Amino acid sequence: MKNEQIVLAHRPEGIPQDDAFRYEQIDIQEPGQGELLLESVYISVDPYMRGRMYDVKSYTPPFQVDAPLEGHMVSKVVKSNVSDINEGDYVTGVLPWKKFNTVESQRVTVVPSREVPLYLYLSILGMPGMTAYQGLLQIGKPQSGETVVVSAASGAVGSVVGQIAKLKGARVVGIAGGSEKVNYITDTLEFDAAVDYKKDDFKDQLAHAVPDGVDVYFENVGGEISDEVFKHLNKFARIPVCGAISTYNDTKPDIGPRIQQTLIKNQALMQGFIVAQFEEDFKAASEQLSSWVQAGQIKAEVTIDEGFDQIPNAFRKLFTGDNFGKQVIKVASE
Amino acid sequence: MKNEQIVLAHRPEGIPQDDAFRYEQIDIQEPGQGELLLESVYISVDPYMRGRMYDVKSYTPPFQVDAPLEGHMVSKVVKSNVSDINEGDYVTGVLPWKKFNTVESQRVTVVPSREVPLYLYLSILGMPGMTAYQGLLQIGKPQSGETVVVSAASGAVGSVVGQIAKLKGARVVGIAGGSEKVNYITDTLEFDAAVDYKKDDFKDQLAHAVPDGVDVYFENVGGEISDEVFKHLNKFARIPVCGAISTYNDTKPDIGPRIQQTLIKNQALMQGFIVAQFEEDFKAASEQLSSWVQAGQIKAEVTIDEGFDQIPNAFRKLFTGDNFGKQVIKVASE
Repeated sequence: MKNEQIVLAHRPEGIPQDDAFRYEQIDIQEPGQGELLLESVYISVDPYMRGRMYDVKSYTPPFQVDAPLEGHMVSKVVKSNVSDINEGDYVTGVLPWKKFNTVESQRVTVVPSREVPLYLYLSILGMPGMTAYQGLLQIGKPQSGETVVVSAASGAVGSVVGQIAKLKGARVVGIAGGSEKVNYITDTLEFDAAVDYKKDDFKDQLAHAVPDGVDVYFENVGGEISDEVFKHLNKFARIPVCGAISTYNDTKPDIGPRIQQTLIKNQALMQGFIVAQFEEDFKAASEQLSSWVQAGQIKAEVTIDEGFDQIPNAFRKLFTGDNFGKQVIKVASE
Repeated sequence: MKNEQIVLAHRPEGIPQDDAFRYEQIDIQEPGQGELLLESVYISVDPYMRGRMYDVKSYTPPFQVDAPLEGHMVSKVVKSNVSDINEGDYVTGVLPWKKFNTVESQRVTVVPSREVPLYLYLSILGMPGMTAYQGLLQIGKPQSGETVVVSAASGAVGSVVGQIAKLKGARVVGIAGGSEKVNYITDTLEFDAAVDYKKDDFKDQLAHAVPDGVDVYFENVGGEISDEVFKHLNKFARIPVCGAISTYNDTKPDIGPRIQQTLIKNQALMQGFIVAQFEEDFKAASEQLSSWVQAGQIKAEVTIDEGFDQIPNAFRKLFTGDNFGKQVIKVASE
């Protein structure tokens, strides 16, 4: 049994190509006292990781060149040197992109239930679901009858945002690219309307979809799509700013209409957040999300690619719009 | 005794020139039941009025072409047909730019005290002071030891923002144009630092003035000045967006760096507001502001021009940076 890892070969410009990633054969480390040996099973790729490839100060430290990339994953316990975690248990955590990780047990959490598919702990029952829940409810605060617009609406976060907003009684409009995603949003997720940003008549479609204006805009994409949404804000609109994926690979400055006059005119609030800041609410939120999932009130689309060698490609798909729902990579059997 | 009014002759482009205003001789209307006849004494010109000259939906309806402009003023009661307001009283309200107004008594408020100069009811004890107080304390929420930056810092709102922030224990940095204003901010208002945006080394001055970053940025100006401040935001920074005066006369779109990535990176909040939304706190706030003024803890610089014919010119000075502190026009003796 050999180990393998993926390191950042150099800081990429634009969408990271294969040469930004380097595969390395390494040894498996024996776990010491208080440690676990874990086999990676499902690895998550998430848009925020692109930010960590730049050498800039942000809410998470940058990845180091020649060091392994890391992200959320579900792993199987191969050996345990702690009493409360057993061989065969499944755990989640933010760990290096290795086939086998040897870590202190505090770095991971045992999954609370195996009644749901394990990969859901990387989507609706993991960081993306929690991000959707906290951003929407703590900042967006949708009220019954209000209009909520969400961009990247078929994605891991956006799809959950819209479904929670529906449960709260809002009228929900999703923005996505391509007819497959647009149909999924209205037919499967049952949003009230969906708008295709790739269509020439996007602006008209959007205006038509929000006849009463926009009370909450959950921002995932940034750029010109959002510029257009901002034209429809209502008084006291709230804009949780979760991401700006359309700009993450930009090699030029992100230039567009400044937002100040729009915010004043609508007495609107715009707040950037990362999910960690709402940590004190995680326990209650997890229970709520689990109960919605188990009752079938929230659906989670997951795209599962297979193979440790597929991780860079799966990561790229986040930015090209070629994935659907939450993107994970299965790198070992359960 | 003849009456006179100033109407909007046409919707101006850029800074309103004289031809945007038309003076008209009109009659004085006798007050009916429940009405007052008022003589305008101090007339206020405020930046937000520029927005009302555009024919766009906003938080206040646009001025109508050929109708009188209107704004805050202090007036003297010439005749009263109501029991609780007497001839010789002074009142404030938002009224048409006329030498004499005949209005229902509900449209005005008797000034609470004559122990302070009357024109202060158009500045620190009026809308600008209340705007500073509410925006800073309800959105900015400065904590002791934090760094507060305010733009247009020698102006009617900015000067009060900075002084309240000082009273709350913050380190306060003002941005203004020209050495006279910069010196006023540090010497008279006792801000911790002042930065001159007209200087070539503005960026360096700013960086030097905020060694610990920016926790609250009270936004009055927009444009490139603010773009530069945003580079220094701290985690959980708050940005009350009060105005964007540098852009009010723009004839081209207001283009610059989009704000989304900055807000995410710093988990920062940006909120547009107008003072009216905090109405339920006005009474308590007025008492607090009065007590600070009477104790000499807040100073209010007022520029008083004289003559009804000087109103358009005084209004223009708001945008050219030629006024100092709050700009009012005295149009009759007290």
